[in-house]
Amino acid sequence: MNPKTPSDSRTVMTDLVLPSETNPLNNLFGGELLARMDRAASITARRHSRRVAVTASVNHVAFNRSVPLGSVVTLEAAISRTFRTSMEVYIDVWMEDRVSGERTKANEAIYTFVAVDETGKPTLVPPIVPETEIEKARFDGALRRKQLSLVLAGKMKPHDATELKALFV
Amino acid sequence: MNPKTPSDSRTVMTDLVLPSETNPLNNLFGGELLARMDRAASITARRHSRRVAVTASVNHVAFNRSVPLGSVVTLEAAISRTFRTSMEVYIDVWMEDRVSGERTKANEAIYTFVAVDETGKPTLVPPIVPETEIEKARFDGALRRKQLSLVLAGKMKPHDATELKALFV
Amino acid sequence: MNPKTPSDSRTVMTDLVLPSETNPLNNLFGGELLARMDRAASITARRHSRRVAVTASVNHVAFNRSVPLGSVVTLEAAISRTFRTSMEVYIDVWMEDRVSGERTKANEAIYTFVAVDETGKPTLVPPIVPETEIEKARFDGALRRKQLSLVLAGKMKPHDATELKALFV
Amino acid sequence: MNPKTPSDSRTVMTDLVLPSETNPLNNLFGGELLARMDRAASITARRHSRRVAVTASVNHVAFNRSVPLGSVVTLEAAISRTFRTSMEVYIDVWMEDRVSGERTKANEAIYTFVAVDETGKPTLVPPIVPETEIEKARFDGALRRKQLSLVLAGKMKPHDATELKALFV
Amino acid sequence: MNPKTPSDSRTVMTDLVLPSETNPLNNLFGGELLARMDRAASITARRHSRRVAVTASVNHVAFNRSVPLGSVVTLEAAISRTFRTSMEVYIDVWMEDRVSGERTKANEAIYTFVAVDETGKPTLVPPIVPETEIEKARFDGALRRKQLSLVLAGKMKPHDATELKALFV
Amino acid sequence: MNPKTPSDSRTVMTDLVLPSETNPLNNLFGGELLARMDRAASITARRHSRRVAVTASVNHVAFNRSVPLGSVVTLEAAISRTFRTSMEVYIDVWMEDRVSGERTKANEAIYTFVAVDETGKPTLVPPIVPETEIEKARFDGALRRKQLSLVLAGKMKPHDATELKALFV
Repeated sequence: MNPKTPSDSRTVMTDLVLPSETNPLNNLFGGELLARMDRAASITARRHSRRVAVTASVNHVAFNRSVPLGSVVTLEAAISRTFRTSMEVYIDVWMEDRVSGERTKANEAIYTFVAVDETGKPTLVPPIVPETEIEKARFDGALRRKQLSLVLAGKMKPHDATELKALFV
Repeated sequence: MNPKTPSDSRTVMTDLVLPSETNPLNNLFGGELLARMDRAASITARRHSRRVAVTASVNHVAFNRSVPLGSVVTLEAAISRTFRTSMEVYIDVWMEDRVSGERTKANEAIYTFVAVDETGKPTLVPPIVPETEIEKARFDGALRRKQLSLVLAGKMKPHDATELKALFV
Repeated sequence: MNPKTPSDSRTVMTDLVLPSETNPLNNLFGGELLARMDRAASITARRHSRRVAVTASVNHVAFNRSVPLGSVVTLEAAISRTFRTSMEVYIDVWMEDRVSGERTKANEAIYTFVAVDETGKPTLVPPIVPETEIEKARFDGALRRKQLSLVLAGKMKPHDATELKALFV
Repeated sequence: MNPKTPSDSRTVMTDLVLPSETNPLNNLFGGELLARMDRAASITARRHSRRVAVTASVNHVAFNRSVPLGSVVTLEAAISRTFRTSMEVYIDVWMEDRVSGERTKANEAIYTFVAVDETGKPTLVPPIVPETEIEKARFDGALRRKQLSLVLAGKMKPHDATELKALFV
Repeated sequence: MNPKTPSDSRTVMTDLVLPSETNPLNNLFGGELLARMDRAASITARRHSRRVAVTASVNHVAFNRSVPLGSVVTLEAAISRTFRTSMEVYIDVWMEDRVSGERTKANEAIYTFVAVDETGKPTLVPPIVPETEIEKARFDGALRRKQLSLVLAGKMKPHDATELKALFV
Repeated sequence: MNPKTPSDSRTVMTDLVLPSETNPLNNLFGGELLARMDRAASITARRHSRRVAVTASVNHVAFNRSVPLGSVVTLEAAISRTFRTSMEVYIDVWMEDRVSGERTKANEAIYTFVAVDETGKPTLVPPIVPETEIEKARFDGALRRKQLSLVLAGKMKPHDATELKALFV
């Protein structure tokens, strides 16, 4: 399969925060943001693979900023690295101040998707070629994250996770 | 504040998988499950703290089992450990086969919530006393997970994460 | 078919009251509560029968307590009695005060479901064996309620409804 | 207050049955129909009283006909009788066959609403004057239903329910 | 096919404005009203044609009145004219003041639908016979609107649009 | 106020077509697309004006292409021209073929928004400076469309609509 670049499948999803998505403090529920990010990232994975893409895992996500009711929220999802049948997708979340127009980072998250055929069987995905500095840095970090994921799932022993282990020793 | 047990705030959320929550393979979207788990876990955190509880982070989540349209899905959320103003919540997800009645584990996830007052300021939460074997094991693992969370957020240097580091060396 | 107990199929559905479910006084719409109770009760009926269960009737329901926006509402549904192909399900509804943690009864309702096969034809359901005092009392009252239901539907003459008639004479 | 007629506040709500409202047999969930009927009836009660109207009770409802996905469903809600601060509302539900255009009765139900002021306190409602034969028959039956409702709620002793008792003896 | 009258397929859709449908000024989103009008008009087109009806176009719509949260909104949709396989539908939108009971015109719009068979192919629709003065006026104006529609779509040259042109010269 | 360009406020909204948004032929309801376009366009108008923006009108919209369930749909909304307190917004709608990845135009529409302050009063908006060829062509056409809008609303006599009249004579 011909390689693709992250910009070939980048997905932008802009929308408002509606009343049915907010908690008692009138901020967006964390869970709703996780669901939106999943939808944006699945579209990116589908655009890259031209297959149905199902969520395989979500990396650790921190919610540092609250997103108030009525905000405009923009999600940008892009492939950071591909493996045989799976794709790591980075999602950057931005919110805008209505009066100043200032755009600030609200969140970021990393999801992994598997491309499947009509019967649900995993299928090969095209390789990715990162272009910008940030795309290259995210590509490089992906192997370490994959090891962490395998360790956390009990599918790799910590001392075999060479990339990850290098962080601690 | 008086300590509480996990069973004081355990939350059970049973519901069906509806058509508007499924992907093209007719299975529950990963993102929808993340949103339901957030809602169940936030109720547990609120019951424990008697405060509004906002999502602070979600640990790594793996989706190993697909959950088909029409399934009955049961989420059980319980406090695994508390810190000063935050609570770690474990969510176990079960799905049932309609014909055999067999109940199988579909998923599990760990969310962290912060208790806040009406202005959004973090406030103290009661301590937790684990009772069962599994509650104790989850309580013990929470410190390691907190360190991992701080390392991933760049708020703790890997070699200071003593509990976590012990896994690798 | 082997008999079952109410606890074999008891269903707990805990969730928040969201803004899209409230009336102009910011309380849960009666109709939304009826829909939630139907969903919880249908899961119970399906767990008991291991069949698709369709709503056959709803007994008289009184709404004595209003349930404010943001409340945690818990529904507990359990089989109270079975007939050949139908099941009476009792639903108890509880709401919690966030600050005191006090849990009060908000409502209760009785739905009847019929178990059907894939073509929609009614099929036999397992018998139920009540265990606790309250389960036995609800089991005993079910016959009187069934007669009332038949009288109201014009399918039984009032003077043939012996159990019911005994209340009035 | 000046009396009104049922046609002054009659409400017609026509809509489709959407996929998110159907059970595994592709028919409308009973609970969704209960919620729609509540919304239609509350509009009627509000039109009659020109107040916020909250659901007080729902009479026994039987679901004799299943309503398939994609059906056009029409609800007609009308005041059948008023008491001091409450209103009984009859809802007739019709479904249409797309090809023949034939319209058949799918259901009927009776809800009771209380008119309240901005603080939630019950307030007086205008009297109703039934005009057609069916309106008069429903007006006459309302007293018996109110007694049944009070008996079921334990607020009236069966032998004081003279209208109701007359049915059985 | 036998001709029909507008009243044979007139559709009334009454409902509340819910919080999830409002903008930051607490008024109904224009887009939500467009969606409701489409649903009401499609039911009318389906009743007239006894076929699935798909939206072909929407005429110019002006939003002159804002519709506040909690309003009762009534849509009345009726066929204004039919062509071979298409139907023009007029939708009148009314809102009511809760206290005075006064009903005022909030909006009106004109949609065109095409009747299709199960494969999506356009099929013939019965002719319409307008009866009231307003129905006749709307019937007469439909030809001019059809020409405007064709001109705007680039399917008719302006100087061939004789009915429309007569307005300007 | 400083002028802005269309790219300063361009909005991209990518999302899936979900089951609850489709008609009996499994294509997106026209009304749902109108609602999505309204949301995307209102975000653009808000970004340009840094005010709340309310829908004032929708130009004639034709639905030439059906959009099947499960499609990825991308809306791009951009300011085409501003007047004193109003903004014309062009929305281009694209759909993608999953297998070939081919992106085709599904629709386009033109909405007009008014910028309002917190009390709902219209307020001035910054001027727009079109940059690309297509932006300039859309800017030029806007005056003719405004005249058409005024004529259709009965606020301008056809023979005073000089730009529009030129089309026909």
